[in-house]
Amino acid sequence: MFLARIYVSPKPTVNDPEGLTILSSLGQLGYQNVISVRSGKYIEVQIDEIHEPTAREKVVEMCDKLLANPVIEEYRFELEKVN
Amino acid sequence: MFLARIYVSPKPTVNDPEGLTILSSLGQLGYQNVISVRSGKYIEVQIDEIHEPTAREKVVEMCDKLLANPVIEEYRFELEKVN
Repeated sequence: MFLARIYVSPKPTVNDPEGLTILSSLGQLGYQNVISVRSGKYIEVQIDEIHEPTAREKVVEMCDKLLANPVIEEYRFELEKVN
Repeated sequence: MFLARIYVSPKPTVNDPEGLTILSSLGQLGYQNVISVRSGKYIEVQIDEIHEPTAREKVVEMCDKLLANPVIEEYRFELEKVN
């Protein structure tokens, strides 16, 4: 069994209104030295696979098909063997 | 300057309807060996600080005050020195 930790974020050139809102709110709370905020998704997926390469391949497929929008988002992930 | 990578996820005992929806969608796409999905937020914050302990303290404060809801969410973060 594998645990995939998937991080999806907006591409650098894409607008991120949620990030801008958080940045503005942090400024209002007194955190003036926050320069930028980017907001994305964090998804943990547990997969019942034995072989790491197969698990890795499946995660890439899932990201491309469902979890990330490749037009405006980029993703990376880590795989950890769990029991 | 520091880059904080912050991961916010629902506590294990808390319902995660978004995660359940993703799980169901992955099942419909043919990924029957996906056991569970938890869905959270991934936030990158750039802070103009020189000292790491101060930056770390600020990030904890921001998470507690704004970025995570401590009643239903837990968070962890990594700090990286950037230029």
